[in-house]
Amino acid sequence: MHWTIYLSGEIHTDWREVIQAGTSARSLPVSFAAPVTDHTASDDCGVAILGPEDNRFWHDRKGAGVNALRTRTLIERADIVVVRFGTQYKQWNAAFDAGYAAALGKSLIILHPPEHAHALKEVDAAAQAVAETPEQVVEILDYVINGALPG
Amino acid sequence: MHWTIYLSGEIHTDWREVIQAGTSARSLPVSFAAPVTDHTASDDCGVAILGPEDNRFWHDRKGAGVNALRTRTLIERADIVVVRFGTQYKQWNAAFDAGYAAALGKSLIILHPPEHAHALKEVDAAAQAVAETPEQVVEILDYVINGALPG
Amino acid sequence: MHWTIYLSGEIHTDWREVIQAGTSARSLPVSFAAPVTDHTASDDCGVAILGPEDNRFWHDRKGAGVNALRTRTLIERADIVVVRFGTQYKQWNAAFDAGYAAALGKSLIILHPPEHAHALKEVDAAAQAVAETPEQVVEILDYVINGALPG
Amino acid sequence: MHWTIYLSGEIHTDWREVIQAGTSARSLPVSFAAPVTDHTASDDCGVAILGPEDNRFWHDRKGAGVNALRTRTLIERADIVVVRFGTQYKQWNAAFDAGYAAALGKSLIILHPPEHAHALKEVDAAAQAVAETPEQVVEILDYVINGALPG
Amino acid sequence: MHWTIYLSGEIHTDWREVIQAGTSARSLPVSFAAPVTDHTASDDCGVAILGPEDNRFWHDRKGAGVNALRTRTLIERADIVVVRFGTQYKQWNAAFDAGYAAALGKSLIILHPPEHAHALKEVDAAAQAVAETPEQVVEILDYVINGALPG
Amino acid sequence: MHWTIYLSGEIHTDWREVIQAGTSARSLPVSFAAPVTDHTASDDCGVAILGPEDNRFWHDRKGAGVNALRTRTLIERADIVVVRFGTQYKQWNAAFDAGYAAALGKSLIILHPPEHAHALKEVDAAAQAVAETPEQVVEILDYVINGALPG
Amino acid sequence: MHWTIYLSGEIHTDWREVIQAGTSARSLPVSFAAPVTDHTASDDCGVAILGPEDNRFWHDRKGAGVNALRTRTLIERADIVVVRFGTQYKQWNAAFDAGYAAALGKSLIILHPPEHAHALKEVDAAAQAVAETPEQVVEILDYVINGALPG
Amino acid sequence: MHWTIYLSGEIHTDWREVIQAGTSARSLPVSFAAPVTDHTASDDCGVAILGPEDNRFWHDRKGAGVNALRTRTLIERADIVVVRFGTQYKQWNAAFDAGYAAALGKSLIILHPPEHAHALKEVDAAAQAVAETPEQVVEILDYVINGALPG
Repeated sequence: MHWTIYLSGEIHTDWREVIQAGTSARSLPVSFAAPVTDHTASDDCGVAILGPEDNRFWHDRKGAGVNALRTRTLIERADIVVVRFGTQYKQWNAAFDAGYAAALGKSLIILHPPEHAHALKEVDAAAQAVAETPEQVVEILDYVINGALPG
Repeated sequence: MHWTIYLSGEIHTDWREVIQAGTSARSLPVSFAAPVTDHTASDDCGVAILGPEDNRFWHDRKGAGVNALRTRTLIERADIVVVRFGTQYKQWNAAFDAGYAAALGKSLIILHPPEHAHALKEVDAAAQAVAETPEQVVEILDYVINGALPG
Repeated sequence: MHWTIYLSGEIHTDWREVIQAGTSARSLPVSFAAPVTDHTASDDCGVAILGPEDNRFWHDRKGAGVNALRTRTLIERADIVVVRFGTQYKQWNAAFDAGYAAALGKSLIILHPPEHAHALKEVDAAAQAVAETPEQVVEILDYVINGALPG
Repeated sequence: MHWTIYLSGEIHTDWREVIQAGTSARSLPVSFAAPVTDHTASDDCGVAILGPEDNRFWHDRKGAGVNALRTRTLIERADIVVVRFGTQYKQWNAAFDAGYAAALGKSLIILHPPEHAHALKEVDAAAQAVAETPEQVVEILDYVINGALPG
Repeated sequence: MHWTIYLSGEIHTDWREVIQAGTSARSLPVSFAAPVTDHTASDDCGVAILGPEDNRFWHDRKGAGVNALRTRTLIERADIVVVRFGTQYKQWNAAFDAGYAAALGKSLIILHPPEHAHALKEVDAAAQAVAETPEQVVEILDYVINGALPG
Repeated sequence: MHWTIYLSGEIHTDWREVIQAGTSARSLPVSFAAPVTDHTASDDCGVAILGPEDNRFWHDRKGAGVNALRTRTLIERADIVVVRFGTQYKQWNAAFDAGYAAALGKSLIILHPPEHAHALKEVDAAAQAVAETPEQVVEILDYVINGALPG
Repeated sequence: MHWTIYLSGEIHTDWREVIQAGTSARSLPVSFAAPVTDHTASDDCGVAILGPEDNRFWHDRKGAGVNALRTRTLIERADIVVVRFGTQYKQWNAAFDAGYAAALGKSLIILHPPEHAHALKEVDAAAQAVAETPEQVVEILDYVINGALPG
Repeated sequence: MHWTIYLSGEIHTDWREVIQAGTSARSLPVSFAAPVTDHTASDDCGVAILGPEDNRFWHDRKGAGVNALRTRTLIERADIVVVRFGTQYKQWNAAFDAGYAAALGKSLIILHPPEHAHALKEVDAAAQAVAETPEQVVEILDYVINGALPG
């Protein structure tokens, strides 16, 4: 049986690559999906394709719409949604995705450093698992798919 | 990952072919679906198969039912629904499809010339993107699927 | 048992008042809801409340969003949705509402003059009843609620 | 017709009181619901009722669960969900609520100062209206309920 | 707590009156809903209101649509749907209502004479209870609402 | 694109074979599903597998349950449900399937001889098409899938 | 705002009365619903109303069906479902109710003595709160409704 | 057509292997899914991957969450859910799964020795079939898929 995993959230570290390398090394039957992680492309996709806007608010709105075409479809197809919160930025779109996925009844894994635990308590409480490292996410997927525990 | 795109609306220009040629040229992993675009067949399918009607209203009803067997199934299977409004005709079935798709939670792209913007404002507001040309739809699909921005 | 009826569509004739007067004369247990029917208010509500826009497209978008807060809530609460198509204008928002209501599984009555029958065939086919006059809608409501047929 | 409005998000300013005073002054037929806004009670409700935890993570989890009993029920009952982002803190639970409400198909109003517009672009794009002040929310509610535009 | 009961099916005996008299005698907090049980009105409502049809098929279709405005709304509002099969006629609309209610997750009571048991086995298997007399339905409602058993 | 068609109802004529031969001759990309059409097996499957019952009512119940494991799953997977009513028997399970499919939002084709039109008017009104012969169903499928009209 | 609470599970102690007395003393705006808690009536309701069965299995089936008419309706109406596991018996219907409520998205409180914690870990993990005493449930309800903490 | 079967419940006998051997011998087109059946792994997966807990309650919670990532996804993908109750232990998670699957509208087979019939009557009543042996489940699957009865 094949599993589809959506990797939402933080785009400034290589956590997605770590997870994909880990599941690849274990030959897990998984496909990954994610938002566009090129920050500039993600910000400018709306105006680059549909024409410029004088007003930054509508510049952002156009881009958010185009990105939503991708992210909502991929979240709805996912078996498990992983949402990563990093140490910087507001990351409200990550929390939005977590709420969106929770209301759809998707299984959720939240990934964040321990210092965010208090601020994320409502988000963590909606998840089936809270991890601190991408390696733990790999271990979770291996267990969930194969029943295999680490070492 | 494969994407299914439903192309609803205007049937008197070649916009569907433009989109399909564009995604084909870029080798995007997409399948397209659409209503029957042969105007006469679409109008007469009910009576041609199920027998003639004296009353034009029921002639139309029979055809609309048979066409709905196709269009509703294909809209429900689509990841993204594109609805095109041309410069002629009432095109109420296009707007109906847009409302139907929106209520199902489908992602929506509306495609229309700028002069229809005011009349379509409620429809546009329910969409994730509003395009003016089929080439823009190709660009959107390329970005949504590959994260690639134009040139 | 009380019934809630949403009256969507054309805003340039008094069809809503005719229906309301008719059901009131018969003391039917109904409440009516509708979009804002003041055309100028409906067009300008977004910018009047949330600030002006240089670009007409976003002027319209703001208004469409604010109107949707009203119309979607009221459609979702309705037992029956009546959609009226008049003789003028594109009325794409009426067809959008019909599609939206149909996908939600709402009962639908479409009200239009006979000359629109062909252009509205897909919309009509999604409805439980197609009427030509608001008086017929009153008769339908009386029958649906009380089982009473006209005189 | 009565409207139920859920007021999610920031708890350190009096924005909820401003909205309630405004709708009360206009005699709007609305009820408001909200999370528990006493910060300490909200943090400690789990352990105060169900017993202490040595580990702060589980202290938070217990509280988040008890608060969710309230917030999810009230969001599901609401006609419109207003989510306020203030100038401080991470406010991830506000963004989570917005995503949760969006996936349920609730109508959304996002309320935030202009400096958050870029960081909130995905959240704003899921909303029907984006306001900067609670007075604007009052105006929106007056328009949505009564069709009345400001003076 | 109030209960809403929809009484579908056979219209040629007084089983609805027996149930209503029985629950009234016991002062059960129930409301009943039903299709229009005047056979002629039910057959002719479409053409009586919306104009005559030459073709009997469309005469029937118009009526079925108008009746559906009533029956679907009332089934969707019901807590419990009771479907009665009598000794005569095809009664396919009764079986259709049972299937419709079952797919909506409604609680079902099927009421029929023992000689129909084999022919109704699929319908009975979808029900929570199968009764032979309307008095048994009254007993069921009394038990379901009050926990009171006969005698 | 592949289509899945569920063929419900009458089991005493070869209508299913006619449809399958017709679509096969046209190489339509369809799969068919159906209830178990061996009447004896269908009646006795419950007791044959799970043990005998003294009481015929429970004999039937056991069989109806086992058959439902098949029929509900296959109806839920179908794109289009065709329900055939023959000239004999009560066929309440056919009408039940039609109601069940309608409430799930499945596309419906009803197939019956003209003499049943009045008794089936509510069922027909819930369908997108009403056919008299299995050959017409083949024509409908060809049109729906390929846009091809007869002759 | 009024809250509806369903009290599922153990029927041999007075925990329901303790909760109701507690919320009554605090004048909380709550209604309670529950299964029939008279063990004999609950076991025999099917045969008492619908006629005796020789086979105990079908005796039980008839009763379970009649009880389901009550319990499913009341669970679906509830804002919060409380499920109590006592120290005796298998109580599989309590765990079934918890799973049923969880899949419906209902808020859940599980109430059990600490010695059952390991055996109930999957059930507890699906709940928003796990309590040990009915007094704690009263405290939770007071907090959830009024934001009031004990003491 | 391929069928997916989820095998929930008792993990101390070889009933899953019996079913899989039986369907394999008959070459049935089925895939099976199940919870992790290694009792120790299932109990400890949370802490083994995500770090130890001093408190056994949270040790269990972590594990239950990780297991739920697997079990809920697989139940949601299943066409038929089989739930086995053995002769030992509380098995509340089995009953929880049955309730969860029932509320999702999944087809259910309950498998248990006859002595549990009374305690499981509510669970059995929600199922389409109640079997006593895994061989009967194989027979049911053969019949459901192929229409073939034993012997």
